[in-house]
Amino acid sequence: MNKINLTEKFGLFEEHWTPKIIGELNGQQVKLAKVKGEFIWHNHEGEDELFYIMKGTLKMEFRDKTVVLNEGEMIIVPKGVDHRPIAKEEVWILLFEPKNTKHTGEVESELTVKNLDWI
Amino acid sequence: MNKINLTEKFGLFEEHWTPKIIGELNGQQVKLAKVKGEFIWHNHEGEDELFYIMKGTLKMEFRDKTVVLNEGEMIIVPKGVDHRPIAKEEVWILLFEPKNTKHTGEVESELTVKNLDWI
Repeated sequence: MNKINLTEKFGLFEEHWTPKIIGELNGQQVKLAKVKGEFIWHNHEGEDELFYIMKGTLKMEFRDKTVVLNEGEMIIVPKGVDHRPIAKEEVWILLFEPKNTKHTGEVESELTVKNLDWI
Repeated sequence: MNKINLTEKFGLFEEHWTPKIIGELNGQQVKLAKVKGEFIWHNHEGEDELFYIMKGTLKMEFRDKTVVLNEGEMIIVPKGVDHRPIAKEEVWILLFEPKNTKHTGEVESELTVKNLDWI
């Protein structure tokens, strides 16, 4: 039951598109990610997913619209909804989602990381 | 599926110790709270609770230790663990916890708010 300093945690990794787990509660996990470039289209069959922008600007593409998220803004992507995050410059994100959420959904791509690390 | 701006949401209320709901996912809720002063000792029988400090300094008292949380820091209080938040000056908090979590646990006090509002 120790405190978690987010700036410190973000300093522990550099890889893009590779979320790191920093906490777990009620079957959900809190993760940090650094992203840059275009991710792949995917959805999560059974899991809603929260993105909170800690730094930078993230464009979240949906099939019918695009939402631009700046620092201090969040969005909840409901289960089953196709989405694709795009970051022109590096973006730091805090994620909340159920423990077993696969970050590329059911899509297997070169970006898929099977076992996420705790930091 | 719109974005949520936290600064804007914090601007919508002033009451202390009265969390406001801003989002829901996977049976969990995201809440914002402004607090000042001492809360009551309580615990949540079945719910883990995450506190993330958006502004100010929060002292979280446990029966055996005190953790001082500054802006950008979070703590996860496991279910069943007695805790008491204390804020010398006003603190802004983001909370993440299961939908039906009562903010004073099973303790009924003058601070208990039965139905939290969405903002």
